[in-house]
Formats: sequence, C-alpha cells, structure tokens
Amino acid sequence: MRKPLILVTNDDGVHAPGIIALSKAMKTLGEVDVVVVAPDRERSGVGHALTMHRPVYCDELRDGVYSINGTPTDCVVIAVKKILPRRPDLVISGINRGANLGDDVTYSGTVAAALEGTLLGLPSVAVSLAANSRFSLDLEALDRHYHDAGEVAVYIARLVLERGLPEDTLLNVNVPSRPLSEILGVRITCQGKRTYDNAIQEIKDPHGRIHYWQGGGTPIWTKGTETDIHAVGEGYVSVTPLHLDLTNYDALSIIEDGWAVKGLLS
Amino acid sequence: MRKPLILVTNDDGVHAPGIIALSKAMKTLGEVDVVVVAPDRERSGVGHALTMHRPVYCDELRDGVYSINGTPTDCVVIAVKKILPRRPDLVISGINRGANLGDDVTYSGTVAAALEGTLLGLPSVAVSLAANSRFSLDLEALDRHYHDAGEVAVYIARLVLERGLPEDTLLNVNVPSRPLSEILGVRITCQGKRTYDNAIQEIKDPHGRIHYWQGGGTPIWTKGTETDIHAVGEGYVSVTPLHLDLTNYDALSIIEDGWAVKGLLS
Repeated sequence: MRKPLILVTNDDGVHAPGIIALSKAMKTLGEVDVVVVAPDRERSGVGHALTMHRPVYCDELRDGVYSINGTPTDCVVIAVKKILPRRPDLVISGINRGANLGDDVTYSGTVAAALEGTLLGLPSVAVSLAANSRFSLDLEALDRHYHDAGEVAVYIARLVLERGLPEDTLLNVNVPSRPLSEILGVRITCQGKRTYDNAIQEIKDPHGRIHYWQGGGTPIWTKGTETDIHAVGEGYVSVTPLHLDLTNYDALSIIEDGWAVKGLLS
Repeated sequence: MRKPLILVTNDDGVHAPGIIALSKAMKTLGEVDVVVVAPDRERSGVGHALTMHRPVYCDELRDGVYSINGTPTDCVVIAVKKILPRRPDLVISGINRGANLGDDVTYSGTVAAALEGTLLGLPSVAVSLAANSRFSLDLEALDRHYHDAGEVAVYIARLVLERGLPEDTLLNVNVPSRPLSEILGVRITCQGKRTYDNAIQEIKDPHGRIHYWQGGGTPIWTKGTETDIHAVGEGYVSVTPLHLDLTNYDALSIIEDGWAVKGLLS
C-alpha cells in the first residue's frame, strides 16, 4: 500500500514556527510523506482569496518544502494540480498563530486553505493555536505550545486518515494555548458568533493625510455552550465541522412566504 | 422620518460600470440617500479579506462617492465606522461583472462585502450579472444588461427596506444576462455545488522561470433544481439567503459518534 501523502500549508508563511511545528508533527505519524507548500510571507486575514490577476511562482526551498508568492488558497491549488506527485490523503493547514473561532473563520487564510482542499475533494483540516496575542507569551513558551498543538494535530490527522470525514466537510481545530497536560479534552463544536467591536486606528501620514488601520479591538463573543469559543475558553480543543454551503435553509421559506416572490418580475 | 441611507460597494472597483449602474438604480428608489464607498481598483476574487497589515486611506472622488485602497470588506468597515453620517439601512454590493454562484461565493469580494455588512448587523445584498464572460457581449449590450440588473436590484432593495431580512442573513442575487423582458421571474434558491475543473496555465517569464496562472477553465456545476445555478440557467433571477455559520450540523453527530471523541486526550 502506498504511503499516505500529507500536504501542509498555512497563512503565516512558510517560515512561521507554527508550520514548522506542524510538519514535524505530521512526520511522527510514521509511514507518511509530508510536503509543505505555503505562502512566501504572512498572508493572514486574506480569506478565500485566489490570485487570478497575475501569475504566481513556486520556489523549492529544500526537499519537500515549497513557497509560493500567493495566498493559502493558491498554495493548495498549485500544490495539488502542479507540485505533488499524487493526490494528497490529507490537507492540513496551520498551526495558525491565533485562534480562528466563530464568524472570524470567514476571514481566515488558514481555514480557507482547508476550504480549498475540500473543494478539491480532499480531507482537510485547519489547526490554530488560540494564543490571545502574538506578544502575550515568551517565545520559548510559545514554541512549546506549538509543539503541543502539533501533538493534537497528530491525533486529529490520524483519525481523519483512518476514518475519513463526512462529504464536503472540513475540520476547524482550535487548540488552547496551554501545556498538553492541562488540555481537558476534545469537543465537537459548532461555530460561535462574534459581536462586533471593531476598533479602527486613525493615523496621519507624513503629509497629513488620514489613514485607517483595522484589526484592533477586542472581539466580543456570544458564548453558547456548544460553540468553539466556549470550548476553547474552558480549556478544550474545539473541532468544528464546516462546509461550504452558506445557504440559510431556515430563511428560504421565510423569504418565499414573506415576499410573495412568485409574482415578482412576472 | 429620516430618509433611508444606502451604502453601495463592489469588488470591481469604484469606476466599474456595474457599480455606476447600481448607484443610479438605487437613486430611483426615491427618498433615499445613496453613498458609494468602493475599492480604488479591481479586487475580484479576494474573498472576505480584511487589510490589517497596513493602513488604508479613503479618497472623496465627488459628492457621495469615495474610493479606498483596500478590499470590499475594508470598504464596508471604514464606510460604516468612519465615513457615513449614520448607520446605513441597506448595504448593497455589485453589480458584479460575472455570476457568483454555488461554491464560488466564498471567493467573491462582492459577496464578502455583504457578509461584512451582515456581521455589522446591517441588511445586506450582493448583486451579480451572470454574464458568461466579460468579453462575450458587446459593450452596449452589457451596459443595457447592467441597467436591467439595476432594475432587479431596485425590486430587491425595496423589499429589503420594507420587510427586512431574517437575522444574520444576507441575500446573494444573480441576474441572468438578458433583457428584463426576457427574465422569467425570481426564485428563492439554495447555493449550488461546483465540481472542480481548475485549468492552470503554465507560462515562463523572460528568465525562463515557470509561473502558474489560475482562474481559467470551465466550472462544472452540479445542478439541483433548487439551486442558484439552475435558476439562473433557466432565465430566472436567483435570490439565495446566505449566513455566516459554516457549521455542518449534520456532521456533528457523525463525527462525535464515529470518533468516540469523549475519550480523546483525556
């Protein structure tokens, strides 16, 4: 039997500590081939962006490690269609620096890479380390936490390789930033909801022109007990099955009835 | 009573014919204020990207028309938080050059702008013109079709302003590229599914280095009769209610049972 092939990618860039920890961790699965194809630099918050307005190129940095001057989505497409010797058995994205919880998953390049894997019909997982801030921990502690999150990723990856995933479904995994021994377990969760607190910094450039800087502020979470946010806050790994169908099925009949739509435009 | 305020944005850029048609159309609603805040240039395929790694600035091009050197998501955030005199009563994004159907909605900057409006608690609509290709029509015909799609947008906008939308729900509207008189009506649809046919063009730069160019190829659609894709193909306007919850609820118990997850890591 052929060895499973695992594609590792991320949105923090090919040199980020999270992806190094993740690819090391995947190799501990034993008889597997691990190939890293990741953006050449940080691409956080790019969502499911696909680079169509310019060509992208791919550098082989060393054996089994490639960088692409594009988005995480680009990396998955180019890897699967152009670089890998065969279709991968698993696409795993991360370990992201910071949580990808609740509504924020739609912004996330890490999750988008797994979405793209799913679109390509491949079992796909996104893994994030729910560190509160990139500066909140000393680097050594952060490295240890990436290592521990890598062990969690190994658990999940083994399960996915052995048992598969429901059709059209990826896993969004968030790991609390604490030693493995202090993680309480794994919870299968649903996506939580964020109430918006969008602090925008207003600054002036050297010429006096006003600029706006986004991404500050503190998210306010609506904590249902079944949500990813709640689970991580309690010290559990959250595993949320996501799909690409954004249809709000509950709203179909509401709108159909409320709008008497049959008569429209006809 | 204060006049409704309508925020118009897009992902094709502030000068695109689709947004000009849309803002003109919105003004025909009568007693409304219309403000355009859109990217300074084409930002198609950027998904729900939020610019956090650099500041963005906002130019007032003329009365009520602003451009931002950022993504559609940036435009909605900055408009609502910094530019508009009050919270808008409607966020409408488009008219996109090309359809946003099926799984492709997750790539779409047009849809992302409406997602962002929804995150901000605002009734939001994305409108796309399902022209097969940007080059498939002569420009005059295309202008007429944008105009007609604008009339459809007015129908929809009036309904949203009068009757509202279900909570956390935006509308993804796709208009067939044909004269209004030949559009058969409106269908409330669910998001269809695309089977992937991703043609990547492989080219060499002047130095012989291989580059990959994405975005070619023909999508292969799985046509359920209830889908957006089917409706537009039949000549109907598709109106798909979307939400931001990507949880695959059907998969929760499958994974929970299949993985015996309670024992994991504990």
